[in-house]
Amino acid sequence: MFSFKSIGCPLFAVLLLHISSIARAQSSETASLDKVKLTFTLDKEGRPGYEVSFGGKAVIRPSTLGMVLQADSLFYRGFEMTGVERREVDTTWEPVWGESSRIRDHYRQLTVHLRKPGSPTRRLDIAFRVFADGVGFRYEFPKQPGLTYFAVSDERTQFRMAGDHKAFWIPGDYDSNEYPYTTSLLSQIDNRDLVEKSTAIAVRVAPDPYAVQTPLMMKTDDGLYINIHEAALVDYSAMQLHVDRAGLILSSSLVPDAVGTKAYVHAPFHTPWRTILVSDRAADILTSKTILNLNEPSKIENTSWIKPMKFVGVWWEMQTGKSTWSYSDFPDSLDPKGRPVPNGRHGANTANVKRYIDFAAAHGIGGVLVEGWNTGWEDWFGNWKENVFDFVTPYPDFDVRSVTEYAASKGVKMIMHNETSGSATNYERQMDTAFRFMVRFGYGSVKTGYVGKIIPRGEHHDGQWMINHYVRVAAKAAQYHVMLDVHEPVRPTGLQRTYPNWLACEAARGNEYNAFSDGNAPGHETILPFTRLMGGPMDYTPGIFKLKGYSGVPGRQVHTTLAKQLALYVTLYSPLQMAADLPENYDAHPDAFRWIEEVPVDWDDTRVLEAEPGDYISIARKGKGAPNWFIGAITDEQGRVASLPLAFLEKSTKYEATIYRDAPGADWKTNPEAYLIEKKIVDSRTILSLPLAPGGGAAVSLKPVKAS
Amino acid sequence: MFSFKSIGCPLFAVLLLHISSIARAQSSETASLDKVKLTFTLDKEGRPGYEVSFGGKAVIRPSTLGMVLQADSLFYRGFEMTGVERREVDTTWEPVWGESSRIRDHYRQLTVHLRKPGSPTRRLDIAFRVFADGVGFRYEFPKQPGLTYFAVSDERTQFRMAGDHKAFWIPGDYDSNEYPYTTSLLSQIDNRDLVEKSTAIAVRVAPDPYAVQTPLMMKTDDGLYINIHEAALVDYSAMQLHVDRAGLILSSSLVPDAVGTKAYVHAPFHTPWRTILVSDRAADILTSKTILNLNEPSKIENTSWIKPMKFVGVWWEMQTGKSTWSYSDFPDSLDPKGRPVPNGRHGANTANVKRYIDFAAAHGIGGVLVEGWNTGWEDWFGNWKENVFDFVTPYPDFDVRSVTEYAASKGVKMIMHNETSGSATNYERQMDTAFRFMVRFGYGSVKTGYVGKIIPRGEHHDGQWMINHYVRVAAKAAQYHVMLDVHEPVRPTGLQRTYPNWLACEAARGNEYNAFSDGNAPGHETILPFTRLMGGPMDYTPGIFKLKGYSGVPGRQVHTTLAKQLALYVTLYSPLQMAADLPENYDAHPDAFRWIEEVPVDWDDTRVLEAEPGDYISIARKGKGAPNWFIGAITDEQGRVASLPLAFLEKSTKYEATIYRDAPGADWKTNPEAYLIEKKIVDSRTILSLPLAPGGGAAVSLKPVKAS
Repeated sequence: MFSFKSIGCPLFAVLLLHISSIARAQSSETASLDKVKLTFTLDKEGRPGYEVSFGGKAVIRPSTLGMVLQADSLFYRGFEMTGVERREVDTTWEPVWGESSRIRDHYRQLTVHLRKPGSPTRRLDIAFRVFADGVGFRYEFPKQPGLTYFAVSDERTQFRMAGDHKAFWIPGDYDSNEYPYTTSLLSQIDNRDLVEKSTAIAVRVAPDPYAVQTPLMMKTDDGLYINIHEAALVDYSAMQLHVDRAGLILSSSLVPDAVGTKAYVHAPFHTPWRTILVSDRAADILTSKTILNLNEPSKIENTSWIKPMKFVGVWWEMQTGKSTWSYSDFPDSLDPKGRPVPNGRHGANTANVKRYIDFAAAHGIGGVLVEGWNTGWEDWFGNWKENVFDFVTPYPDFDVRSVTEYAASKGVKMIMHNETSGSATNYERQMDTAFRFMVRFGYGSVKTGYVGKIIPRGEHHDGQWMINHYVRVAAKAAQYHVMLDVHEPVRPTGLQRTYPNWLACEAARGNEYNAFSDGNAPGHETILPFTRLMGGPMDYTPGIFKLKGYSGVPGRQVHTTLAKQLALYVTLYSPLQMAADLPENYDAHPDAFRWIEEVPVDWDDTRVLEAEPGDYISIARKGKGAPNWFIGAITDEQGRVASLPLAFLEKSTKYEATIYRDAPGADWKTNPEAYLIEKKIVDSRTILSLPLAPGGGAAVSLKPVKAS
Repeated sequence: MFSFKSIGCPLFAVLLLHISSIARAQSSETASLDKVKLTFTLDKEGRPGYEVSFGGKAVIRPSTLGMVLQADSLFYRGFEMTGVERREVDTTWEPVWGESSRIRDHYRQLTVHLRKPGSPTRRLDIAFRVFADGVGFRYEFPKQPGLTYFAVSDERTQFRMAGDHKAFWIPGDYDSNEYPYTTSLLSQIDNRDLVEKSTAIAVRVAPDPYAVQTPLMMKTDDGLYINIHEAALVDYSAMQLHVDRAGLILSSSLVPDAVGTKAYVHAPFHTPWRTILVSDRAADILTSKTILNLNEPSKIENTSWIKPMKFVGVWWEMQTGKSTWSYSDFPDSLDPKGRPVPNGRHGANTANVKRYIDFAAAHGIGGVLVEGWNTGWEDWFGNWKENVFDFVTPYPDFDVRSVTEYAASKGVKMIMHNETSGSATNYERQMDTAFRFMVRFGYGSVKTGYVGKIIPRGEHHDGQWMINHYVRVAAKAAQYHVMLDVHEPVRPTGLQRTYPNWLACEAARGNEYNAFSDGNAPGHETILPFTRLMGGPMDYTPGIFKLKGYSGVPGRQVHTTLAKQLALYVTLYSPLQMAADLPENYDAHPDAFRWIEEVPVDWDDTRVLEAEPGDYISIARKGKGAPNWFIGAITDEQGRVASLPLAFLEKSTKYEATIYRDAPGADWKTNPEAYLIEKKIVDSRTILSLPLAPGGGAAVSLKPVKAS
């Protein structure tokens, strides 16, 4: 086995091994890289299986592979092996944007060719890629007479765990990822109580009490960190994991369509990659690029128009009840002159929007999002209404032309908002019209939303039909040079590599839950990077400065300190980062807002300094094309001192560190807005000691001191 | 009660009767016109009901009305009557095209206002229109706080018949109307055998053995003809009839959506009209304009571009196996140069199409349809494939520009073909592109098709989602000034009044079944006008001249004589009529083809001279704006002599009758192509005697003899 290293020109080696005598005898093939070892087996009944170990420790015990097809309900046994292929790839590529500017893709691939005799004979390949931090594998259906168009009834991929690991999980809901995380042993997983009480989630469909979403993060008793997810989810339904609590077996559970089918397939076809990441260091999970590497390169040739940015928006004021998305409180009602009756609290009015534009311009914030600008918000939710929005008709008090011209004069980009209410058919019918409108009025990005039960009725947010819809939207947006921030889609699987205009998704429980529900526990943001963010950036909407008293509900507050809100700009990566609070709340803390002005959204390099899921995360990142570093450190409800060696800094260079941290006595619950800002000179030998309050955090900028 | 008669300006009178004391006591209201009497009742349990009689004979015995809503499963009892409104309308209007150029709309309306006390109080209106030939009624949901968005679980409309009538029925299939008719007593209805053996129908979903499609035609023992259907099916699912064979009760059975719901409603809303036509003359059923009258006037203001026409097409040659829709026999396959592999039998090639254009130009036929011109036909059927056609990419051997220019130079209109394979989502995404393509290349009409299981999966051809789809297509086509001929949609309900560009539908078992199945029984065409055509024109594709030996299947033949094929141009009305056979088969009978050249597709007047469902029909029609009359007379498998008084002719005018009739010895089975043509001079006192062979017919043109 040999390897190449290159950039821009991936080289690889292929070894095709023909198995001379096809036999049903048990056979096995292995592939390994560093500490990761993958073994494929075909047993005497012709059942394919695999296992994975890390440094000799079992990660995945012998587990089954295979499918239940409508055409063959036993497409998981009776196979013969007809050959294997091996190759090794070691290359480096440059993402359009991201957490680092160069990404190494190094793996050894084992592809097993299987044949199931019969009439017709059918063929199946299983491709494994072994990385230094895990394994990806997928099913590949070659073009063949016996399987052309076919339907998948079930996938029988198992992940048989080696122990009763600690797991960080949310329910396996077909329509939502917006649950708080539960930390429990695998054997304790039961989502029923959580699903039942999560009434703040718009749509909850979780028929299997023992199903969880991926990415599923686990920690073993002997110190391994294991993450199971999928990569490159295209034209297939999302994989959830059913947990056999007695056997400690996780098995793939695909989200069904309206008639119960899991996927409609046209060969040649391959499934998404099933990914298993493993390390004895939690930080390695966070820095893994394996999921990205398993996605296809960009389909967009000219990416010069794709620009990460920060934004503010007419949004938190509606979430907190200060204003409304809707123009009127009376759906279907008109005044005697045939006009809708204004409620006087409509947020997206021209004057208010210009106030946000002024704020963005004054603080160097790139974009302004406006929700509630278009007609339809009086009855948009909960009615399963198909023709709910038209995406081009503003309310009477929103002057789109005037707003566009004003923003342009201030050098600010307007961000379009297209809420679909889950009515994807309606959006697809009007998508070209919507994007033409954006181009006409200079909107270079759009936040889409899918709050509500999906139309086509019977389909789910995470089923194959919607998976294809999201990709259609990304491709269509690219045609119009529009960037995407998708709320309430399936959780991401690294497709931002292939569609780099698909900057961010929500697909998790965002900061907004602190506005309209009991909120997010202090540990929430220490779990998200290990789970939801493994697939891609999240539009979490950090940056709330007024952490109490923002809504009329007694006891409602954000479950972090202000300093932690700052730290999230580093610990929760997104190329689109909102400064989510109101301009007036930022104006009350201009010194703290300075951090948000300065923190980049695109990076050359990322170092995870310390991390433990559910407890704490400290990350340092270097701004793209600049010498400055930025650190975010957060903790859960336990206060702690983050002790961070700055060894990543340029040797023999002095840096001015500006530290935004919790003030003494700060506490997410009792005293969240107490912060202090201090400056000190540091270098690569410094170990920064940052005291973090309960639910607290710290943010640090590090700029080389110019020789005077 | 008083009436007006006018044209263009409908006048009406309204009487609003407030019921002074709201009471649960049994109450009844009646309305009648000529022999038709409607009685509405509200019984002591607050259950609305109705009955209908004709000349004192019971047509509908006391029957229930009401709904099962998701919000109120008992929305059929507990009502109070709060008022009634009465009005009478007598007006005349002019259709854009049709069987007559002026249509009288005369009815008495009774609207019952009901209220169901409770929290919230809910309201329901039921509107009845009583015509001289029947009754239409519908449910109307006024705007109200207690019912805004709601879902219909079931409609409890009954039609309790007064006897075990003879019925002409097809199965209540959610996806097809393409069954042969069964004639049986109501008590004998059971669709299972027929559904099971109808393997030539692409999609069969008929879960209720005792459900039938409407229009349901019945004949009573005492000589009444009764027809039950619906009018103006918009934003609701199609009504089928469940037959209680013991109780002789027909009840509404709405086609469910993917999750079992029958309709999603936003009040104010009204259901389609449920129609009951009745007469003691079968001919009156055929001439009834009640279904059209219950539809809304045209939504298209400028209708000058809507032009009925005849057409030929590259179609029957594929149906009969002479050529193929597909270009290749190998889906997913390309030759070494990356091109598809032609099969050499592709019908839609430029040269062949020009042959049809030449034929059309030579014979004054207005249009040429070409099926199979666009890529995708290799794997279009049976795969439930969503992205099946793109509607703009021609096969390599079809030069769309050259065809367009050639047709224009010959004065012939090309007819576009958009087969969707049932993938309505795909069509909706591409509809604008498809229509722009038509406009660009001069296609003023399109034949659409829905062969296959519907996508969105779980939806049905006859469910609310698809009902809305068909209307969306009609409205979109109108925007582009394109006329529509829709194959495999829901059966029509008179919407051609509202969308006069929606010229025709298939939605029944057409002549094509004689090409690829055991075909249509000789009586089939004598039933269609009483059933399927009650809702609107049918693109039956008549005019087959080569009635045997057109396919390689032994025994396969069309089940009519040639003369009957001619007669169908009058007896089966459509503003789009195909001359479906091959040019070479017409060239073999230029004298008979003369009839097809001459017969109009738009009429001033229509007289049904004699009719008996399942047995015979003779109809005379006067060409629009011309003095010529045309007669079609057909019979079932029984030969007979049609004896037709020509009293409709202009008095004291001589006409030259050209009679195309079965030759002596003609017989659909043994000698179908034996016809003769004779001319004679006739006038309004003539009684034409036309011998019709078994399965035969006759066609007559009547032209005033010019004074020499």
